[in-house]
Amino acid sequence: MEQVTYSPIGVIRSPFKETAGTPIQPTGAGGIRGTIEIDQQFIPGLKDLEGFSHLIVIYHFHLSHGYSLLVKPFLDESLRGVFATRAPRRPNPIGISVVRLIGIEQNILHIEDVDIVDGTPLLDLKPYVPQFDHRQAERIGWLDEVVDKAKDVRADARFE
Amino acid sequence: MEQVTYSPIGVIRSPFKETAGTPIQPTGAGGIRGTIEIDQQFIPGLKDLEGFSHLIVIYHFHLSHGYSLLVKPFLDESLRGVFATRAPRRPNPIGISVVRLIGIEQNILHIEDVDIVDGTPLLDLKPYVPQFDHRQAERIGWLDEVVDKAKDVRADARFE
Repeated sequence: MEQVTYSPIGVIRSPFKETAGTPIQPTGAGGIRGTIEIDQQFIPGLKDLEGFSHLIVIYHFHLSHGYSLLVKPFLDESLRGVFATRAPRRPNPIGISVVRLIGIEQNILHIEDVDIVDGTPLLDLKPYVPQFDHRQAERIGWLDEVVDKAKDVRADARFE
Repeated sequence: MEQVTYSPIGVIRSPFKETAGTPIQPTGAGGIRGTIEIDQQFIPGLKDLEGFSHLIVIYHFHLSHGYSLLVKPFLDESLRGVFATRAPRRPNPIGISVVRLIGIEQNILHIEDVDIVDGTPLLDLKPYVPQFDHRQAERIGWLDEVVDKAKDVRADARFE
């Protein structure tokens, strides 16, 4: 199938300068502040965004090179299919995080609950809308036993 | 910033052969069945996925060409900043949908609640995990007044 090419629309700034030590989910990054710097040309596209309390941030895992179809996730000791994990070492290394939007000044978005490495290229921003995005999931597979650990576990460099 | 290039890992099949008439959100596509055909080479990456009741599907809006920073969404009569909408006509036309996983046979994933046009290139699949992905959003901006209409409104061709 035809390849697709995207140009990042901005960059994500956070206190995490490298993968090791970065929270593995926003739920483990409660209160951690960061910013999104949008390229100036896209400022008009931010209109109306400030009305939303949360954003879906879509980004490129720029520190991940190559991929593995089986990975040992941060939360587990077993090899899991990469599509059953949120690990960055994926065929298309796209990351998503739901963050809290604190405010917007020109091209700078102030955000909270940031589990993203500083310097990560931003691909897209969408409003988080529970009526669209929330499901009553009955089953969360292998994560069932370990999901609560996500608050405390930090990343290491295994996926770089 | 450097461009990023992705190779689709499969294709999404649905009853919707064109944008016009396609539900605009999975909440408007209740019970609608489709499939995801993963390229054979990625089958090992599907291990453990069947344990999850819902998936996050990340795809390329292949029918959207070019972008507008202000768009008139399907749910509204006003021009909104594109990043405050889920419209496909975005600088990087990436779409996300949370769908129900019915079952997996080899490289075919049977899914439900499909609001995606037939033939859409698949970029990534992730397990949907409420503990990671669900937020109590206090504010949904301009959507507050109209979000309930999303169940009934169908797309037209305005973003092609």
